Amino acid sequence: MPQPADVSEPGYSYLGPAGTFTETALKQVEEAQGKPWRAVNNVGEAFDDVVSGRSVAAMIAIENSVEGGVTATQDALTTIPHLRIAGEYLVPVQFVLVARPGITLADVRTIGAHPVAYAQCREWIERNLPTHAHIPATSNVQAAADLLGADGAIIDAAIAPPGIVDHYPLEILGEDIGDNPNAVTRFVLVSTTTALPERTGADKTSIVADLPEDKAGALLELLEQFSTRGINMSLLQSRPIGDALGRYRFVIDLDGHVHDERVADALLGLRRFSPRVVFLGSYPRADGRRADEVAQYSDENFTDARDWLRGILSGERVDP
Amino acid sequence: MPQPADVSEPGYSYLGPAGTFTETALKQVEEAQGKPWRAVNNVGEAFDDVVSGRSVAAMIAIENSVEGGVTATQDALTTIPHLRIAGEYLVPVQFVLVARPGITLADVRTIGAHPVAYAQCREWIERNLPTHAHIPATSNVQAAADLLGADGAIIDAAIAPPGIVDHYPLEILGEDIGDNPNAVTRFVLVSTTTALPERTGADKTSIVADLPEDKAGALLELLEQFSTRGINMSLLQSRPIGDALGRYRFVIDLDGHVHDERVADALLGLRRFSPRVVFLGSYPRADGRRADEVAQYSDENFTDARDWLRGILSGERVDP
Amino acid sequence: MPQPADVSEPGYSYLGPAGTFTETALKQVEEAQGKPWRAVNNVGEAFDDVVSGRSVAAMIAIENSVEGGVTATQDALTTIPHLRIAGEYLVPVQFVLVARPGITLADVRTIGAHPVAYAQCREWIERNLPTHAHIPATSNVQAAADLLGADGAIIDAAIAPPGIVDHYPLEILGEDIGDNPNAVTRFVLVSTTTALPERTGADKTSIVADLPEDKAGALLELLEQFSTRGINMSLLQSRPIGDALGRYRFVIDLDGHVHDERVADALLGLRRFSPRVVFLGSYPRADGRRADEVAQYSDENFTDARDWLRGILSGERVDP
Amino acid sequence: MPQPADVSEPGYSYLGPAGTFTETALKQVEEAQGKPWRAVNNVGEAFDDVVSGRSVAAMIAIENSVEGGVTATQDALTTIPHLRIAGEYLVPVQFVLVARPGITLADVRTIGAHPVAYAQCREWIERNLPTHAHIPATSNVQAAADLLGADGAIIDAAIAPPGIVDHYPLEILGEDIGDNPNAVTRFVLVSTTTALPERTGADKTSIVADLPEDKAGALLELLEQFSTRGINMSLLQSRPIGDALGRYRFVIDLDGHVHDERVADALLGLRRFSPRVVFLGSYPRADGRRADEVAQYSDENFTDARDWLRGILSGERVDP
Repeated sequence: MPQPADVSEPGYSYLGPAGTFTETALKQVEEAQGKPWRAVNNVGEAFDDVVSGRSVAAMIAIENSVEGGVTATQDALTTIPHLRIAGEYLVPVQFVLVARPGITLADVRTIGAHPVAYAQCREWIERNLPTHAHIPATSNVQAAADLLGADGAIIDAAIAPPGIVDHYPLEILGEDIGDNPNAVTRFVLVSTTTALPERTGADKTSIVADLPEDKAGALLELLEQFSTRGINMSLLQSRPIGDALGRYRFVIDLDGHVHDERVADALLGLRRFSPRVVFLGSYPRADGRRADEVAQYSDENFTDARDWLRGILSGERVDP
Repeated sequence: MPQPADVSEPGYSYLGPAGTFTETALKQVEEAQGKPWRAVNNVGEAFDDVVSGRSVAAMIAIENSVEGGVTATQDALTTIPHLRIAGEYLVPVQFVLVARPGITLADVRTIGAHPVAYAQCREWIERNLPTHAHIPATSNVQAAADLLGADGAIIDAAIAPPGIVDHYPLEILGEDIGDNPNAVTRFVLVSTTTALPERTGADKTSIVADLPEDKAGALLELLEQFSTRGINMSLLQSRPIGDALGRYRFVIDLDGHVHDERVADALLGLRRFSPRVVFLGSYPRADGRRADEVAQYSDENFTDARDWLRGILSGERVDP
Repeated sequence: MPQPADVSEPGYSYLGPAGTFTETALKQVEEAQGKPWRAVNNVGEAFDDVVSGRSVAAMIAIENSVEGGVTATQDALTTIPHLRIAGEYLVPVQFVLVARPGITLADVRTIGAHPVAYAQCREWIERNLPTHAHIPATSNVQAAADLLGADGAIIDAAIAPPGIVDHYPLEILGEDIGDNPNAVTRFVLVSTTTALPERTGADKTSIVADLPEDKAGALLELLEQFSTRGINMSLLQSRPIGDALGRYRFVIDLDGHVHDERVADALLGLRRFSPRVVFLGSYPRADGRRADEVAQYSDENFTDARDWLRGILSGERVDP
Repeated sequence: MPQPADVSEPGYSYLGPAGTFTETALKQVEEAQGKPWRAVNNVGEAFDDVVSGRSVAAMIAIENSVEGGVTATQDALTTIPHLRIAGEYLVPVQFVLVARPGITLADVRTIGAHPVAYAQCREWIERNLPTHAHIPATSNVQAAADLLGADGAIIDAAIAPPGIVDHYPLEILGEDIGDNPNAVTRFVLVSTTTALPERTGADKTSIVADLPEDKAGALLELLEQFSTRGINMSLLQSRPIGDALGRYRFVIDLDGHVHDERVADALLGLRRFSPRVVFLGSYPRADGRRADEVAQYSDENFTDARDWLRGILSGERVDP
């Protein structure tokens, strides 16, 4: 339930209008309930709200199980200073094809849809509407709304979330049209708060690291920072640094919290290796899955090793 | 110069309309000159032309130095069987902001642009038009054309290639509005021809490999297939396999031709390791840059080793 | 049972005299039974017999579970050209301390023993004879024999195999004096035959490889030749190349036969990497233990990959 | 110059008698001059002197450029608790063959020599005395002395250091008989002092680490502890743990001092990985060679990374 925006109180920004998957994600955030919500038009605007203090936090799509990383989000998190991820939220993705009453599938020539949604329905559309044209929209809800607008003439049908027919007088031409019935989109709540969420034992840490220039095997060396500490990655996405073809940074999600010794140690290794590391935060996993405990990488093992080294450095007799 | 399409003769498909960067790329292809060209509306249509035999080949954008990989292209190359890359072509990317005569920057509320182009002009636009809305278009040229159409009302300005004003009666509101003056887009010419282009000594090999499921350190192992043979990667992009969050395949460009012993050997290693490897082709590099020769990975060294092993297997006395 | 040496027929050489562990090992070799046996004084002599053709093969100790590699053997196998290991044999190692009748433990001041045997009885000797002196001998049996010789005066007791008292009128001062009750010595049968023993499924391959000079991480790269093909090592021993401190070659036993695809492929990789690789042979394991089959490294997987690559190279349409 | 042993003052132990290479090494130790020296008969005795406090320190051969590690020394350093290496010393190794006056090369049937010395003269001896027998001796000087003893009858000639003729009335049958003219032996001064020698910038750190049991690729993982921190190894020697064939520990010399951040960090990693790590000491290199400085592994880089992580953990805004 969207709340009326109270301009005097900072609230939460999300990609609108009401009815988007982003709004669904924000509904999962307990502390956002009862606060003003701001529907924005694009990712840049959402981040701007956070940086300027207009909003406490913004909910942003960051990864889709079918389409992959949302690169605009990843790039903004990399380049806008001091942003932090405070939590992640999963929303199952389902799509319907809608049109104004009276329109049939045979009438559809042009389809309005956000490019990510369009990509996720490719199979159904190519099977049912082989000669269609795609008109990209800023959001699927917007595309659906456009069907009813003054310029509804450009698009004949829209891809939208199933709940769309509760808000708009549209008819469903196709249900469950997504290629993958298990598709899910991952959203993150972004703020500028540097206080770290508590460690739950089922956490993620998000970072972005540039590869050192002109160093053969640099990516292998980067990945070894994690593998030699028993840390799994749940996301690894290359993004061009932008200055030349073939130069990359990597957007990475690690299993674990920076309060885990192995993660802290890996970040140290990474920081020594990479010319630029952005720490985006440690936060509870949406799926609550705990990483397997391996004795070699346990906090206790790290503490033992430090005690042993401290003994050597202070001239004590140490046990092997 | 686009040629009139002769329906009876298979030609070349590209993302139209005339004036797009894709058309500029196709102009670099010698064998395409004098043949019919087909302007298509989307990547799927282009691939369809190739698979059906309507076109000999299609020119498709695959990577941008600022925006990264074109995921729709990468995914299509992965999933449509038997496609091959026959060559790559680079086009420098420059943008102007155009509008109908009489419109000034202060009048612009909405901007039409292909999402990739829009992303590449973010800085200029946010500086000059902080309150704009973005209306995605299927191509920048289309957005520019729309400015003059019946529904020109929705967008006030469009991001387009500099040559646009030669084709349309539009005025330039901003020049060189791209964030990165060295931005370049890489295109590939895609066909179904399985004959391999000759080795030139400055070649690339493109592949897509799934990671084995549930195998810790799988990516490290994949990358070692190349590093242990002295092979550099010029592209590494993760793409979701699509069945669950966190499951990836990798789109990879290697330095070298499958006729190079080290590349052939790496492909063997990769094929043994990965449940699914798509070979997309070996072709000359657009920049003509040759890989550094390292004796350890030379063809001669591979041949010597094979001769030595053959001696052992056939019971000869072999030198160490 | 040692056979009388027939000078006209080539037989088998072993480190004598009769009663040594080496003779015990040779008794395990079926094809040596009924052939002339030559007891030699040192490893060099044994190899010389083989190279000159005086013997068909020689039995040589190569590794001890307590003392490690027998470096003289390893170095000779590395430097003498064209030697091959035809099989391996295990002999449990047990020791007694013997002396002439009438001598008690309290009388013992000097102990004769081969250095390797001496090292394996250190604990017992230091506990029971803390002030002893060690007189090295060429073999333990020789030391025992010396107790009864004209110069028996120098040593008071000898470390010897348990069976020694069957051959010599000596008395046992201590039984089972070895530090490790499970100690075992590994022997190899060395010849110049280049025909490869058949693959049994439980095989070993022995090699020696120099590390390339001045190459950081060279050992890691050497080991990766095996790990990336799923091959375990049962022996890894560094030996100085001899030209300077810190320059090494490695004596390596691999699980598997050169007729296993993964082993053949690893040898190719090794040969390309190392300036010098000595192939010492593939032969059945003495313990008959079969390596775990991993599908990724199966012969079938290697063959499939080659078929796939051959398809690409010959311009066929290949399945991913 | 050997000093008369003063039983009341702890001094320095070395493998005697006077004239050995070990004595030559001890002469390089400034603080040992003017102190009592104890000539001992074997490595065990030398370590016993140190552990019991009879000696301040013992000089022990640990590695030879031709023969490799001295395994008895390596094993003793591993198993006797609380020993530390305080420094290393290099002695060039040259050998002569000596005999009693009147004996010629043609008369020589048996050669007395320490096994390590014998091994280093193999080529010369096999060329000049192909039918000799080798009688191992506890030291070369002892073998030379034996030529003149009551039991001189057993050996006809001895391998000894060149200076031997200054101490004994012997004649030289062969000069420079070592196979390698650049052969050198490395000695270490061993004590129980846990105070660390100061960092000089050209240091070594010696450790022994067991490999975890039943862990595929364990050695690779061990070596990565060093390679991922830019640390070179100047010694890597496998030693059997002793409980079964194929189970190893590794004796390792690292470039650098435990006061170097990268070395300390590698020891932490090693300790977490290995079930047993023996720290044998950090001490100045005998050759004074400094390791190349790599910015990535500099102390400053480690400190910077720690400051950055501390900022994250304490909730500060940190720069990437």
